[in-house]
Amino acid sequence: MPQVSEKGKAMPASPIRKLVPFSDKAKEKGIHVYHLNIGQPDIPTPEVALQAMKNCHETVIEYTHSAGNLSYRKKLAGYYRRVGIDITEKNILVTTGGSEAISIAFMSTLNPGDEIIIPEPFYANYYSFATICGVTIKTVTSYIEQDFALPPIAEIEKVITPRTRGIVIVNPNNPTGYLYSRQELEQVAALVKKHDLFLYADEVYREFCYDGLKHFSTMQLEGVEQNVILVDSVSKRYSECGLRVGAMISRNEEVMAVALKFGMARLCSPAIGQIIAEASLDTPDSYFKAVNSEYIERRDFMVEALNKMPGVVCPKPKGAFYAVVQLPVDDSDKFARWLLEEFEYERQTVMVAPASGFYSTPGLGRNQVRIAYVLKISELKRAMQVLAKALECYPGRVL
Amino acid sequence: MPQVSEKGKAMPASPIRKLVPFSDKAKEKGIHVYHLNIGQPDIPTPEVALQAMKNCHETVIEYTHSAGNLSYRKKLAGYYRRVGIDITEKNILVTTGGSEAISIAFMSTLNPGDEIIIPEPFYANYYSFATICGVTIKTVTSYIEQDFALPPIAEIEKVITPRTRGIVIVNPNNPTGYLYSRQELEQVAALVKKHDLFLYADEVYREFCYDGLKHFSTMQLEGVEQNVILVDSVSKRYSECGLRVGAMISRNEEVMAVALKFGMARLCSPAIGQIIAEASLDTPDSYFKAVNSEYIERRDFMVEALNKMPGVVCPKPKGAFYAVVQLPVDDSDKFARWLLEEFEYERQTVMVAPASGFYSTPGLGRNQVRIAYVLKISELKRAMQVLAKALECYPGRVL
Repeated sequence: MPQVSEKGKAMPASPIRKLVPFSDKAKEKGIHVYHLNIGQPDIPTPEVALQAMKNCHETVIEYTHSAGNLSYRKKLAGYYRRVGIDITEKNILVTTGGSEAISIAFMSTLNPGDEIIIPEPFYANYYSFATICGVTIKTVTSYIEQDFALPPIAEIEKVITPRTRGIVIVNPNNPTGYLYSRQELEQVAALVKKHDLFLYADEVYREFCYDGLKHFSTMQLEGVEQNVILVDSVSKRYSECGLRVGAMISRNEEVMAVALKFGMARLCSPAIGQIIAEASLDTPDSYFKAVNSEYIERRDFMVEALNKMPGVVCPKPKGAFYAVVQLPVDDSDKFARWLLEEFEYERQTVMVAPASGFYSTPGLGRNQVRIAYVLKISELKRAMQVLAKALECYPGRVL
Repeated sequence: MPQVSEKGKAMPASPIRKLVPFSDKAKEKGIHVYHLNIGQPDIPTPEVALQAMKNCHETVIEYTHSAGNLSYRKKLAGYYRRVGIDITEKNILVTTGGSEAISIAFMSTLNPGDEIIIPEPFYANYYSFATICGVTIKTVTSYIEQDFALPPIAEIEKVITPRTRGIVIVNPNNPTGYLYSRQELEQVAALVKKHDLFLYADEVYREFCYDGLKHFSTMQLEGVEQNVILVDSVSKRYSECGLRVGAMISRNEEVMAVALKFGMARLCSPAIGQIIAEASLDTPDSYFKAVNSEYIERRDFMVEALNKMPGVVCPKPKGAFYAVVQLPVDDSDKFARWLLEEFEYERQTVMVAPASGFYSTPGLGRNQVRIAYVLKISELKRAMQVLAKALECYPGRVL
């Protein structure tokens, strides 16, 4: 029998999704599972978006331009200019979700054996896309005690080698919810410039900044205009995770020309999705205000509830809708599985993402989980109650 | 300035799409361009599919399962059983178009430096996906004089080396329109079994078989159940090219488990597309009968019109909606570009795909183009008239 590939064997199962079979089994037993593991908001998709789908007059669902519909790219460029990112449609490749933007950005710029640097914990799928490209991820650890702020720039510079080709910054951060400041980003920019690196910037949570803080984009950094590659997506902005529409953006013309060749290979990104995404750009400001208020309320409730549980530490995230939380458990992988296989409280349990999958340094994150506050307050309250009960009776409890 | 990747430099521009900027310019000059270059049918998407989009009740466009919605996979398995392919939903990974099915199939099974064999001319994007995986494509030439039938199996066996990992068969064939017989496929199966190879089978044109011929699937071959990986798509079947919904199918559990890990990395394929694709499975038989009649009429007209032109040779394709056509020109790349940049007949021109991009043997296909008969008879008539006029006055004419 012919064998699977080495990359296939090396690919990690998603720390966010690998427990799905166990949650399916729990549901089959009639147990309600609160999904805190995945960044799937319950926030309604904007009405303008849903209406665009229902009013779609297409009679033939055709391929679009490989770079994305021109009308969408032009309007999208307008969105970026409004948030202070001065670009045109020529700087945009519409992609199949942020995932494909990462994938094409890496394929366009990285060779097998190259290295990229990411502060850890980091969004696990970066590891998958690096594996696909044969690229090594070097991490510099950020710590829960510092709310997962950027590690000292000297620590980052220490891991640069002749094979280093880029730095990845996710801002606001998934999984930590940390919002990088302009000053932190300027330090990264100086390093990128000094060592002639790419700066891969994932800003899909741009709209989700709290406590009066304003998002500063890597595309606004001076002196690294040719180095920055932006990864973006409509998934979280408009609660359109299933649409699979994102964008890869750069002012580097050579990079964009190569990216388009990868875009041509897969023909185009979803046509209906692009129509919906284009309409979504008309979402009124009131939508975002309401959504942000909702997330702030959820965050405040959740952070307080978690920190009240004995042995639990949860920093207060300034952006996105995640927190990396320290739990009094022996092994969060075991704990997450135990929650689904052995535990229930009043026919309910919770699903969390073990944080070990977000670290590359062995051993780190074993007492941490990522929690997404993507449930209504009423559900989040029950989920926190269930989690508290679970921690009380988990056999691997460590205090 | 940091440099693009070696793979990025090596990626070919699509032979089907690389002329798009020139056709855009022709259109700007007010010249009507008949698109014979791309497999974008003008056939309406089935009404059941469009209605499903308009009636979609989702209020949150959520991620789906990474393998695809269970309801879709179950219903899709039923479709396969009806066409004689005995599988269940467990054998299916729903993908983002047939393109991603190829990409994940290759990534799941091939290592850099491996070789795969494809009869040439072949669908150019296979070259792109092989390049992404660092895989070498070895070709065995099929000839216009034999209507592009399978090359002798001994010729295929000759190019097998210790690095050969698979054979790709596109049936009905893109770009040639050739329909492989059961006997030809059984020869391929014997070779695959003898050398323990994968058989990547692209059957996206399964419904488009003419002249009373019936499609025989590689999934129906005996003795190679663990070797066959099927690539499929709704793009052509339901005229849903822009939907970006396809499938990778195999009975090899190890391959499917690895494929799912790649599927998890990109989270899911389009949610709205899956809803539409699921509804499309209820398309009545009358739709396919009408579509096939239409294509047969177009094919018969086109083949006759082309063969009447001096120096033109067009075999009669038995499937799909393409033909590889020999033209009396010095270089079909030059000719295709000349058509868009310098030629017009009554403010009209045609766009064709130069066939050199479908061959890997240097020099082959230079006097051939791929033509897709995806236009209404009335338009196809004008397109043929324009092409005839163009051949009469093309400066590089060779007779």
